Amino acid sequence: MAKEVSNKQIIFKDYIHGFPKESDMILKTSIIKLKVPDDCNDAVLVKNLYLSCDPYMRSRMSKIDDNYVPIFTPSEPMSGDGVATVVDSSHPDFKKGDLVTAVTGWEEYTLIKSTETHFIRKIHNTTVPLSYYIGILGMPGMAAYTGLYEISKPQQGDAVFVSAASGAVGQIVGQFAKLSGCYVVGSAGTKDKVDLLKTKFGFNDAFNYKEETDLNAALKRCFPQGIDIYFDNVGGEMLDAVLPNMKFNGRIATCGMISQYNLKQGEGMRNLLYIMAKQIRMQGFLVYHYRHLYPKLFDLVAPLLEEGQISYVEDVAEGLERAPAALIGLFSGRNVGRQLIRVASD
Amino acid sequence: MAKEVSNKQIIFKDYIHGFPKESDMILKTSIIKLKVPDDCNDAVLVKNLYLSCDPYMRSRMSKIDDNYVPIFTPSEPMSGDGVATVVDSSHPDFKKGDLVTAVTGWEEYTLIKSTETHFIRKIHNTTVPLSYYIGILGMPGMAAYTGLYEISKPQQGDAVFVSAASGAVGQIVGQFAKLSGCYVVGSAGTKDKVDLLKTKFGFNDAFNYKEETDLNAALKRCFPQGIDIYFDNVGGEMLDAVLPNMKFNGRIATCGMISQYNLKQGEGMRNLLYIMAKQIRMQGFLVYHYRHLYPKLFDLVAPLLEEGQISYVEDVAEGLERAPAALIGLFSGRNVGRQLIRVASD
Repeated sequence: MAKEVSNKQIIFKDYIHGFPKESDMILKTSIIKLKVPDDCNDAVLVKNLYLSCDPYMRSRMSKIDDNYVPIFTPSEPMSGDGVATVVDSSHPDFKKGDLVTAVTGWEEYTLIKSTETHFIRKIHNTTVPLSYYIGILGMPGMAAYTGLYEISKPQQGDAVFVSAASGAVGQIVGQFAKLSGCYVVGSAGTKDKVDLLKTKFGFNDAFNYKEETDLNAALKRCFPQGIDIYFDNVGGEMLDAVLPNMKFNGRIATCGMISQYNLKQGEGMRNLLYIMAKQIRMQGFLVYHYRHLYPKLFDLVAPLLEEGQISYVEDVAEGLERAPAALIGLFSGRNVGRQLIRVASD
Repeated sequence: MAKEVSNKQIIFKDYIHGFPKESDMILKTSIIKLKVPDDCNDAVLVKNLYLSCDPYMRSRMSKIDDNYVPIFTPSEPMSGDGVATVVDSSHPDFKKGDLVTAVTGWEEYTLIKSTETHFIRKIHNTTVPLSYYIGILGMPGMAAYTGLYEISKPQQGDAVFVSAASGAVGQIVGQFAKLSGCYVVGSAGTKDKVDLLKTKFGFNDAFNYKEETDLNAALKRCFPQGIDIYFDNVGGEMLDAVLPNMKFNGRIATCGMISQYNLKQGEGMRNLLYIMAKQIRMQGFLVYHYRHLYPKLFDLVAPLLEEGQISYVEDVAEGLERAPAALIGLFSGRNVGRQLIRVASD
């Protein structure tokens, strides 16, 4: 007879408009058997160790036709990327004790019935922190890799601007661009984050966008010759200020627009004429359409981590109970570095 | 002794703001010797036959730092692409009687001192109308070729939307896209232009944007499955309506933004989030950076014209006196087809 245990879960209440609140998610405790049910072939039961908190999750909370991400189901647990350990398995490729990454639930234990749609993958190398597999070696790493190398194609000496530069993706982009011989400037929302950019991550320069009265002037100060590559994580006002400061043939990789996700209507952007006048290429991408590039990311980053040539700063919320507050905090920039949740230590 | 003749000229008065007016240009009559001065080596004196009227000329009337086009000089003649005949030459490659295209002045006779910066080029094939060398075989043809084939890369079956579709560039884009096996819809500003698109140019569908109360609904009606390629000649409100109607991996070629040139501040664009959500690539281009592709355009279009497989509709203003009104008319859509000025017949 399989052991039954309690299973704390963070439940998505219902579709929302505007800014998300902690009360849009509720903590519930269920019971779960620590065994894959007999009628479930190729299933894996996991104990979640780390869960990812990402801005795109806001888009999953809206009921919009043709949404670019799968929307959450009301009354079901939230879900996202996680690191977990296998508790039981009816799948030949996974056995008890395996460490994995997967799309998992915001709960202590998750029964993954479809290993394919949940992108479950074994972790082989455990010399790097496990949480990195949903960070610099996970989706944020893939976003940085795709947006910089696939979309923007940096050349030695290029002037690169990164917004939300100390965040999950931005800190990787900046360090990649430095390794490619670029001049790199980042923006962030506190003095501490700006310091982090200039010291820990080696950006050439950085500024606190909340303290600048004129973003255009700040960009002109940092890039008197203009910007070759803008890695956009925020959209809105910052993007509009960047456009006139782009160089001819500049490239903009549109990775995210966190400033826009909670707005009913997008902010008015007035400088699109520069797309034509400066022959700018502005290209959006969704990282889950570039999963095939994962081996390239791994081969690039794993040695850099081992040699200490790249850093990754995480902001860890301890305990599933803190997950709603951690997610909401992303939209006010409360997190310093990559936000995640530690559900259990092993 | 060289013959002296009168030389009517359209003079650019001074830099402007907002909508241009006819009175921003004045007609003046000078005197010119029909001979290249003795101290001018490698110069060509031409008699202008046709002059081009293009929306980008509005941008040349503003004194803006870092303008994307060379600004006009106050008190000097306006200038632009023209078809002309050589009257006298001190350049070994050109002789009296040669037909040429060049960047020439808005005047009856122009002394071209630098053949390189004025892109003077001999016309060899005279089986097509001479005016086409500043139309479908000139800059507008190059804009259509570059934006469609180089930037947008159409595939058989792609859904293509063209704005300002009966204009100098749009009519060519639509016909090229049809020849590439695409489904093509255009927008224009009068019923007559819409009819022209559907009959003369073979567009699959077309609509009058001025009669649509909801551009989004009009686009949904014409493209229930979405748009693969948007060839943008107008920017502003239409571009904003197009963005949510793009397909995943859609491409936008930003050729022009005529709706924005006369505004002090660009219109607010609220749908940029779709750039990310639909992985859109939006790319601007300036045709004079793609001059090297000219032989490809010529090789494509010349046979199509000879076989009657492509049409080109022109709106010809007779006489240099009418040039200011013709230019101003572009911004209210007064022209039907490609606007040009006939200065002389031979």
